[in-house]
Amino acid sequence: MTEMACQTNLDLQQFIEEAKKVTKYGKVADYIPALAEANQHDLSAAIYYVDGTCVKAGEMETYFTLQSISKVLTLALALMDHGQEYVFERVGMEPTGDPFNSIAKLETVNPSKPLNPMINAGALAVTNMIKGKNKEEKFERIITFVRNLTNNHTISISEKVAQSEYDTAWLNRSLCYFLKEHGIIQGDVEELMELYTKQCAIQMHSLDLAKIGAVFALNGKHPETGMQLIPEKIARLCKTFMVTCGMYNASGEFAIKVGIPAKSGVSGGILAVVPNRYGIGIFGPSLDEKGNSISGIRLLELLSAKYSLSIF
Amino acid sequence: MTEMACQTNLDLQQFIEEAKKVTKYGKVADYIPALAEANQHDLSAAIYYVDGTCVKAGEMETYFTLQSISKVLTLALALMDHGQEYVFERVGMEPTGDPFNSIAKLETVNPSKPLNPMINAGALAVTNMIKGKNKEEKFERIITFVRNLTNNHTISISEKVAQSEYDTAWLNRSLCYFLKEHGIIQGDVEELMELYTKQCAIQMHSLDLAKIGAVFALNGKHPETGMQLIPEKIARLCKTFMVTCGMYNASGEFAIKVGIPAKSGVSGGILAVVPNRYGIGIFGPSLDEKGNSISGIRLLELLSAKYSLSIF
Amino acid sequence: MTEMACQTNLDLQQFIEEAKKVTKYGKVADYIPALAEANQHDLSAAIYYVDGTCVKAGEMETYFTLQSISKVLTLALALMDHGQEYVFERVGMEPTGDPFNSIAKLETVNPSKPLNPMINAGALAVTNMIKGKNKEEKFERIITFVRNLTNNHTISISEKVAQSEYDTAWLNRSLCYFLKEHGIIQGDVEELMELYTKQCAIQMHSLDLAKIGAVFALNGKHPETGMQLIPEKIARLCKTFMVTCGMYNASGEFAIKVGIPAKSGVSGGILAVVPNRYGIGIFGPSLDEKGNSISGIRLLELLSAKYSLSIF
Amino acid sequence: MTEMACQTNLDLQQFIEEAKKVTKYGKVADYIPALAEANQHDLSAAIYYVDGTCVKAGEMETYFTLQSISKVLTLALALMDHGQEYVFERVGMEPTGDPFNSIAKLETVNPSKPLNPMINAGALAVTNMIKGKNKEEKFERIITFVRNLTNNHTISISEKVAQSEYDTAWLNRSLCYFLKEHGIIQGDVEELMELYTKQCAIQMHSLDLAKIGAVFALNGKHPETGMQLIPEKIARLCKTFMVTCGMYNASGEFAIKVGIPAKSGVSGGILAVVPNRYGIGIFGPSLDEKGNSISGIRLLELLSAKYSLSIF
Repeated sequence: MTEMACQTNLDLQQFIEEAKKVTKYGKVADYIPALAEANQHDLSAAIYYVDGTCVKAGEMETYFTLQSISKVLTLALALMDHGQEYVFERVGMEPTGDPFNSIAKLETVNPSKPLNPMINAGALAVTNMIKGKNKEEKFERIITFVRNLTNNHTISISEKVAQSEYDTAWLNRSLCYFLKEHGIIQGDVEELMELYTKQCAIQMHSLDLAKIGAVFALNGKHPETGMQLIPEKIARLCKTFMVTCGMYNASGEFAIKVGIPAKSGVSGGILAVVPNRYGIGIFGPSLDEKGNSISGIRLLELLSAKYSLSIF
Repeated sequence: MTEMACQTNLDLQQFIEEAKKVTKYGKVADYIPALAEANQHDLSAAIYYVDGTCVKAGEMETYFTLQSISKVLTLALALMDHGQEYVFERVGMEPTGDPFNSIAKLETVNPSKPLNPMINAGALAVTNMIKGKNKEEKFERIITFVRNLTNNHTISISEKVAQSEYDTAWLNRSLCYFLKEHGIIQGDVEELMELYTKQCAIQMHSLDLAKIGAVFALNGKHPETGMQLIPEKIARLCKTFMVTCGMYNASGEFAIKVGIPAKSGVSGGILAVVPNRYGIGIFGPSLDEKGNSISGIRLLELLSAKYSLSIF
Repeated sequence: MTEMACQTNLDLQQFIEEAKKVTKYGKVADYIPALAEANQHDLSAAIYYVDGTCVKAGEMETYFTLQSISKVLTLALALMDHGQEYVFERVGMEPTGDPFNSIAKLETVNPSKPLNPMINAGALAVTNMIKGKNKEEKFERIITFVRNLTNNHTISISEKVAQSEYDTAWLNRSLCYFLKEHGIIQGDVEELMELYTKQCAIQMHSLDLAKIGAVFALNGKHPETGMQLIPEKIARLCKTFMVTCGMYNASGEFAIKVGIPAKSGVSGGILAVVPNRYGIGIFGPSLDEKGNSISGIRLLELLSAKYSLSIF
Repeated sequence: MTEMACQTNLDLQQFIEEAKKVTKYGKVADYIPALAEANQHDLSAAIYYVDGTCVKAGEMETYFTLQSISKVLTLALALMDHGQEYVFERVGMEPTGDPFNSIAKLETVNPSKPLNPMINAGALAVTNMIKGKNKEEKFERIITFVRNLTNNHTISISEKVAQSEYDTAWLNRSLCYFLKEHGIIQGDVEELMELYTKQCAIQMHSLDLAKIGAVFALNGKHPETGMQLIPEKIARLCKTFMVTCGMYNASGEFAIKVGIPAKSGVSGGILAVVPNRYGIGIFGPSLDEKGNSISGIRLLELLSAKYSLSIF
């Protein structure tokens, strides 16, 4: 692990202090006990530059689970497994004004294809595509991919979070069976649920997440190892989805106010990418009503304004 | 069984011949193989009078499964088990313009309560309420109730249909998990699916179904045994639902064109009630686009016009 | 006017006192000032028997406007003008779980045809069908029809209510233009709005309304004059719509709890029909959340329970 | 006019020949006669560089109307008139999976605020904000703004198209009245319709449109005059909307396949921006099923692939 080599940065610390002021306006996800244990006022961030240097600030010792952030990683893997044509026959490319866990549009829009891979329905369909001869091998492929992206081979899952989500994911099961009815999902739903809840429960530090961001900033090449972990075209495609659909149904507002590719999770994590420059990993578990880290978004607004990060 | 005592009726036979002309405009349900085997041009009907006499015509030897017709019977049983207040806290009383298997309104309408017990979502919630210490006892209570209503203790299920529906009921599972997420359904979904697909697979002849109709015509009292099998208030309530929601999202048109309480199933069965006079059991597997027996509805239109059956 | 001849009835008075207890749980419509002036605690009712006798109780001196009650009367007139086929090519027969002023289903359901004539979209389409060489003649035909139904040739409109609704009916205009886009409505929308708001503003006493109910109770024949004002088939059809769709999206519940044809308006009026026996006219301006007179429904529940009025 | 100075470019001509192959798979808009007259197989494009040079190819003599392209221009003007806070209280920032002329989400999503300014509902609300003491002055301000953006003071409207759209814009009227009901739109709807149909009927050549694109490429500064016509922040904001919502409900796919800010209209026009480098103006009236120029999109895909235009 490289975290030891990463210095606390005073500028970043100041932005974090400023951004922390809004944690009180959000609340911690409470739909599973493991997430509800998070400290509402935590906020940490790390920046990993494409030259391999990094800075960090805030509560860096806290592990958090990827949750929806994993959607962008399994999308990359599924695209590497099957190519664009196969994937986008089953999942659309369009942003939606609906909440991430909505089912209504699957019924009212033909041909019952999830609108994009960043909403739950689409992500379930994508995870269902991951190659592997059984669920163990599929998960092994996912976590190995994440370990390579972070260059951190200690990355593992929170068994407690995975189990807790598996035990209560009724809405995701509802989505899966709906998609199975329409041929978008194949195979056993419970196996898919196990795989999906595990991918959501992969845990790491902000710095690991920042390093994943740096891989995307380099269009798929790892800043430390120099390996092309994701083909450039797929890396760009993932960044595009992060812009149009990465922040749930607040993606449009985020594009205007921050303007960089980012993906959030209900754990309070945010993966953000400043193309060609650096990746950002954030953990701030107090969420706004759309499910995004309220102080994480504030922090990115401050950074974007200060350093002119918007790609627009 | 009383079927032997029931004479073929020439008038009824003529109406059936007339109604059969429309079978070609519909098609047999094909979502499970067992239903797809039905003969599109079959049409049989039996009328059971409240004085215990009966007439019949058409292909009376054919067994058919109740499918959605069972919804009105489990509703009666659930109301007898729990009373109106409990049941209608979990299921609404309002007709809907949506198809019977729709999920969209569960999301867009608060508090995620199925609009009525005649659509799949509502019926699944009702079946989930049936009392019993395990799934076997629950099913035993349902089939015993049906045997009492028909006064035919040989009534059983089509294992083949039950299994086939159980194996493919992805949309119903989707509905169940959605309802479980919102606390409308409790317990194990697979057990509920087993119970529900069995209740749908209860099979009988038109005459048995006509006899159930006669029980409703007498507000719950059995015409043969004289036993009050359903309390009058509940029997009336079930008939009301049959009028407002019994023929899927063609209920309004049916009320205008026929005007009697009726409940259809995708097997092609129709249970109809002429209050205080008789019950009608119909089997015609060719379905219109809403899922109702196309010739069955035609037959009821002819009977209603001829004998002024409308309650309106 | 026959109101003078109608005696105050002590039984009815008692039911009204009982029903009045719930007026405090509702509220008076406030979307136009003229309706907001109503006294929340008023409740009056009249019963007009098919033999020409009547009883009344409550605040009988109050005039109220028909509002949505007029929908069932223009439906009868349009059916007399054009026949069923023409009318039901443009308006459906199905109840809907949506509010009366909803537009969403017009977009999501093909072919953009209002689900039934009792919701605003459907009623606007029906009023658009009324024959007449100009808007004045069309309105003259409507009010003449209402005067004949009440046998009260002093019936007129509240100009104040008509104007007030005309000035603010943005949602109805939105529905009209949507329907015009889809060819369901022809001609000038402002003329239609004028006609529609006038028909809604026709005002009368409870006894007049009760007399209209008596006409429906006799399947279209006037109890006083003996004239067949509405063909029997159309009168029955209107009663059917009153059962399936008459009480907005509380029609299903009303069918279960009361069980007679009825149509409500946001003025607090209710027209109710006890087939072959009598008509009921009610005015109670305190509305429940669905837009029905809260004490009016309570009164009908009490009467239905006491006198076994349900047709089911 | 600078068009004379703009040379036909052979590379561009070749791309146009290639892109023209798909015109046969689309069709010309036919909802008003004036648009239906366009030649399905036309395709022209102009590129205006930020240094003031330009190239062009295809049928450059054809004028076309802006239609929805005008939405991004009036948005800029409304933001200059009122600031972000005022504008975004009335119109959202989120992309939607629904068609541009949809009304359903206005009803199902609170607070009845159009999801973004690029769908019709949002654009109508934005046009309603344009300052001016009467409709003439408002339109004068819009067309003056467009003339400044194109540096072409001969820009005018097609009266024929404006009148034709005004005469048939029932759906837009429906949207306006719905928004008026909810306080999003104020004032007279017919005046707004006149203003809106005029803004849609502003006509120009591809080169004029390319020059508008160049203004956005320079974040609001005109490449010829050097004037800051749009404040930088607003110009960036408009480009962001062009990326997330500019190509109707195909914006997500366009972002992936092309990856530059663009706005299309049903006339077949496309305004595209390559930040800091150039603007592109395209006219190809054959439309795909989402309403975008089918050959125009193909042309942009070819250019984006060849010259690596994607901002992602």
